[in-house]
Amino acid sequence: MKQTHFGAHLCLDGYGGSISCLNSKDTIKNALYELPQILGMERITRPKVKHCTPRNLKDSGGYSGFVIIAESHISIHTFSKKGFLTADVYTCQSKLAKGKIISYFKRTFCLKSVEINYIKRGLSFPKQDLY
Amino acid sequence: MKQTHFGAHLCLDGYGGSISCLNSKDTIKNALYELPQILGMERITRPKVKHCTPRNLKDSGGYSGFVIIAESHISIHTFSKKGFLTADVYTCQSKLAKGKIISYFKRTFCLKSVEINYIKRGLSFPKQDLY
Repeated sequence: MKQTHFGAHLCLDGYGGSISCLNSKDTIKNALYELPQILGMERITRPKVKHCTPRNLKDSGGYSGFVIIAESHISIHTFSKKGFLTADVYTCQSKLAKGKIISYFKRTFCLKSVEINYIKRGLSFPKQDLY
Repeated sequence: MKQTHFGAHLCLDGYGGSISCLNSKDTIKNALYELPQILGMERITRPKVKHCTPRNLKDSGGYSGFVIIAESHISIHTFSKKGFLTADVYTCQSKLAKGKIISYFKRTFCLKSVEINYIKRGLSFPKQDLY
């Protein structure tokens, strides 16, 4: 396939999730291991997941997780008491298996609905090295 | 200001950057310290920056960096020989100082041009805890 842009980026915001899954460090870490495998992306770091303490009415706490893929990344932030999750899957491949990613998140965190933004990144990415 | 969504996410793809800045681990790490300060975001991890070895004609190598902010993040991926950088600044505040961010990246990496995608995230984010 002719590459006409740098990469593909899926932003997923999910609602009505399971408080126990959204509040599970292991579930989030596991997702950061599984998703790159499912999508054929090469991890170059181990996933890092950090607990976020409650800060105010809006941010009532959760977890933030991240993994660096070869020149791209996956991130997951959860707000367990709000049933909310906001995730990014960014690949330098020209497209992403959107359906597979959406199903994975819905299933893993028992999300009732999702909101998707899908962006083609780097529309003028050079085909050759410049330097 | 009335919060009508979860957060704001700026995706910046930059072209024609300086090979030496794009290839400098220190410059990238420094940006991941400075940007949260400039934007009033609270870092909850130290920035992590990883060298990415060349893999193919498209991916001729660079650096990937990431920092977790309180329930959001900043990421930077560089492809030094292509003069290219792709960055994400995601905040749980309702909006971002776009001009400030764009100027910072242009100045720091000597980018000739940028491509911007700006997304309001979590349009149905619950105002109160559900659980």
